[in-house]
Amino acid sequence: MKIALAQLNYHIANFEDNAEKIITAINQAKNEGAELVVFSELSVTGYYPHDLLERKEFIEKASQTVEKIAQACQGIAALVGAPSINTGSRGKKLYNSALFLNNGKVEAIRNKSLLPTYDIFDEYRHFEPNQEFNVIEFNGKKLAVTICEDLWDEQPTQNEFGKDKLYQTSPLEELSKQQPDLVINLSASPFSYNQENWRKNILVKNAVKYRLPIVYVNQTGAQTELIFDGGSCFVKEDGSIPVELDYFKEDFVVVDTERPVEKKQEQKDYIAKIHQALVLGIRDYFQKMRFTDVVLGLSGGIDSAVVCALAVEALGNEHVRGILMPSRYSSDHSVADAVQLAENLDIRYDIISIQNMVNEFENQLSPIFENLPPGVAEENIQARARGILVMAVSNKFGNILLNTTNKSECAIGYGTLYGDMNGGLSVLGDVYKTDVFKLARYINRNEELIPENSIIKPPSAELRPDQKDTDTLPDYEILDAILFKYIELNQSPEEIIKQGFERETVLKTVRMVNQNEYKRFQAPPILRVSSKAFGFGRKMPLVARYF
Amino acid sequence: MKIALAQLNYHIANFEDNAEKIITAINQAKNEGAELVVFSELSVTGYYPHDLLERKEFIEKASQTVEKIAQACQGIAALVGAPSINTGSRGKKLYNSALFLNNGKVEAIRNKSLLPTYDIFDEYRHFEPNQEFNVIEFNGKKLAVTICEDLWDEQPTQNEFGKDKLYQTSPLEELSKQQPDLVINLSASPFSYNQENWRKNILVKNAVKYRLPIVYVNQTGAQTELIFDGGSCFVKEDGSIPVELDYFKEDFVVVDTERPVEKKQEQKDYIAKIHQALVLGIRDYFQKMRFTDVVLGLSGGIDSAVVCALAVEALGNEHVRGILMPSRYSSDHSVADAVQLAENLDIRYDIISIQNMVNEFENQLSPIFENLPPGVAEENIQARARGILVMAVSNKFGNILLNTTNKSECAIGYGTLYGDMNGGLSVLGDVYKTDVFKLARYINRNEELIPENSIIKPPSAELRPDQKDTDTLPDYEILDAILFKYIELNQSPEEIIKQGFERETVLKTVRMVNQNEYKRFQAPPILRVSSKAFGFGRKMPLVARYF
Repeated sequence: MKIALAQLNYHIANFEDNAEKIITAINQAKNEGAELVVFSELSVTGYYPHDLLERKEFIEKASQTVEKIAQACQGIAALVGAPSINTGSRGKKLYNSALFLNNGKVEAIRNKSLLPTYDIFDEYRHFEPNQEFNVIEFNGKKLAVTICEDLWDEQPTQNEFGKDKLYQTSPLEELSKQQPDLVINLSASPFSYNQENWRKNILVKNAVKYRLPIVYVNQTGAQTELIFDGGSCFVKEDGSIPVELDYFKEDFVVVDTERPVEKKQEQKDYIAKIHQALVLGIRDYFQKMRFTDVVLGLSGGIDSAVVCALAVEALGNEHVRGILMPSRYSSDHSVADAVQLAENLDIRYDIISIQNMVNEFENQLSPIFENLPPGVAEENIQARARGILVMAVSNKFGNILLNTTNKSECAIGYGTLYGDMNGGLSVLGDVYKTDVFKLARYINRNEELIPENSIIKPPSAELRPDQKDTDTLPDYEILDAILFKYIELNQSPEEIIKQGFERETVLKTVRMVNQNEYKRFQAPPILRVSSKAFGFGRKMPLVARYF
Repeated sequence: MKIALAQLNYHIANFEDNAEKIITAINQAKNEGAELVVFSELSVTGYYPHDLLERKEFIEKASQTVEKIAQACQGIAALVGAPSINTGSRGKKLYNSALFLNNGKVEAIRNKSLLPTYDIFDEYRHFEPNQEFNVIEFNGKKLAVTICEDLWDEQPTQNEFGKDKLYQTSPLEELSKQQPDLVINLSASPFSYNQENWRKNILVKNAVKYRLPIVYVNQTGAQTELIFDGGSCFVKEDGSIPVELDYFKEDFVVVDTERPVEKKQEQKDYIAKIHQALVLGIRDYFQKMRFTDVVLGLSGGIDSAVVCALAVEALGNEHVRGILMPSRYSSDHSVADAVQLAENLDIRYDIISIQNMVNEFENQLSPIFENLPPGVAEENIQARARGILVMAVSNKFGNILLNTTNKSECAIGYGTLYGDMNGGLSVLGDVYKTDVFKLARYINRNEELIPENSIIKPPSAELRPDQKDTDTLPDYEILDAILFKYIELNQSPEEIIKQGFERETVLKTVRMVNQNEYKRFQAPPILRVSSKAFGFGRKMPLVARYF
């Protein structure tokens, strides 16, 4: 059977554009002689529409769009993803469905059985799980149509108590009883750098176990925090993968399932993938929000330099504007390094000292502050004065402020709420500091865009004289290792200590993570690249007794 | 049977304090001759621990605490709520359980069947639903033990497409086949002013349908945004409710199920309830976070006045500090009204003009702003300068900033991010402006605490000369009606227009709501008093094409 794999980048609730993309791909597939074209999960609406799924007008628009797409299916069939109405008397009102479009209409509907409810997934909120299993017969073949998680046998959890468990049902086991010829999977599986081969392993395992070829179609593109990396593929029943689509971009191929023509992708290391993911994340955020221009504060440090370089790659140098905001504690090299960066990247920049504003705040507050020694309050005034300046530029010219906080800082609360934690989008909030260094080296792989001095100098917030991050924090290698074990692996402080880390350092780190839930509660959306990012995939109570 | 209803206020993850409260109540129940004492859902951990449920050390601590509580159960039995481990090979790793403690040990475990996944509920994320139904036999009676949602037949949704549906199973129907004598329900059901009799109706409906008395125990107290109102009760099989516990506070009573002694509660109107809820919400946030003191900006307007009065009631006048921050656009009466409020409430206040700081920002920005006419950028500088001042006081003295934004403003984005949207807790973010007026009148019911002028003057942000809210917004009566229909009732713009609202006003309002998701993304936690609050009970995609 000749099947087209259409790996597209959808825009949530933008039914017009999504339908146009889908219909264009249907026509292309037909022209290239395909019998069937497969799109990804919830392709009609974009993944994931969240509580828009509770709105009648949204569901009606989705149905109308499906009808419109169905009309394009003449002489070719298509599988698209969309919500469909549960007409029974029990359960949630919707299914997460694969709609089989043929002869100008919806000829069959297959619903998702395994609804993920871990990490960033929340599908049980809106959908009823399917309990009936039937192949679709088409052109003499039996197709086992599944949706994303349906191929996952084990519940992917990282909590370390009890054994890992299976789901209550195995959709593919049920479908395999009907002797299908081919498995089709419509997916919406986001990128995470530490789950690299996880997805392919699942596909291969299923293909081999059931001796069935699998057509796997994932979406690409970013939806606020989530970055979908594509990588759709055709897996043969022996577990080999002759056809693999591109990563982090739209792609399209027609596969003859009997005689697939090889299409391979270059393997990249994880830093190169994170780089691609973040560039796509920025670009799609701006395009889909209809924004064009960025503003960001340039401190001369590595975080803002990396974000600036990523923004230039995503949006073009003429759309990026840097603001340098030195204070009395800024070293000469900070300004020089930031200017060098702006010149290397050829972006517009301005220098505005915050000193007069800071002095004025301190003057006005001095009767209240009663000669108390300077401390966090005064440090935060500096960060917040900078926050006002960049937001003023943002408000005046419509440039969106990019946040430059990295995951290590975000974890331990080493940042000022309403100051440097401001921004429309956090670019590095899921990238540990040790990986920020690697990203900087990667960005400089061909030429020195980020000044060497920004990379090698000791990190500092420069909010008091001669301040360095290491005054109050462990070395980033140690800090990041502890954070990874605590956050990504859910290990307890005692388990981490047992692995050889200093007790005091572990307890202090964990305490900082716990005490700063309140800051993260108000943080911007964070581009997710790991298996456990801060944001809606990690829900911690704010008011609780930690420790 | 003599059963004690223990309605307590738990602290999430504070196992020591929760255990102490529970054991104290067990002893009291025993002293008062009860055979059984019933606590609320997840009473051992507090409701809801979110992803702490994924941490091994948390689950271990919960089990140890249950063992400790069980040891207190000698000569009396108890039903407590806690997570328990699913020892099967399939499904999630935990159940949401009612543990029957007797003779010093856990004698029986009953698991929750219906796991709510709507609005603020997210229980499928962590728990496997129960599928087995067995009464507990105790002292010659058969007890049908259920947990909260288990008594709900219909899925409570507000989406308006398709018919309302039943859950797949009805736990009480299953249990009723075993001829129980009594239904017991351990609950964690939060307050919302517009679902007043919803809960009682469900209980009465079940009691009458199955001809069974029901012991219903709810928790009280606030957990960040959620405010649990208690109102535990005993419902007779004829649907009458002879025993009702107090609202918004801990309460305890021993009921003889054969001959219950009447205990009734005074009925209050919805504004009085919202008032009680918000005072409890503030008090518990501070107590459980171990904070004592508040700071807030006093503008002379009604919102900050109401929040200030609520804070004084919750924490005491000596723990509340007001900061008046006039600018060149502040009218004389603004300062006078704010001073009057502070004096009426007998709180400390300071006056700091923002004008010098604002001037300095404008000076420094003028080379960049290139003589563009003043607008939103300049207005926001004022709001943000105030934000810096109150946060400086907060950082210096440890006072927590209360946010004073109301739900109408929050909905349409009529507030400055990193300015007046700052705060550790939003007190009025779920109270529409029209209800803020009613709250002010209620607060003044005995004496004029809030100056009459703050209530009657036209609302204004005072960020430009002679500005009034009605310059850009419809009257609050109309605005709030549209917002309620769009947000709480999920009605489409067309449905709202059909009810007689001006098309242009509806479309403009809805557009403002949609365009300001990004501001709410970074808003503080909001005390929830309605059936649909902004925050984690309303998940809207940020990047999407609205309209």
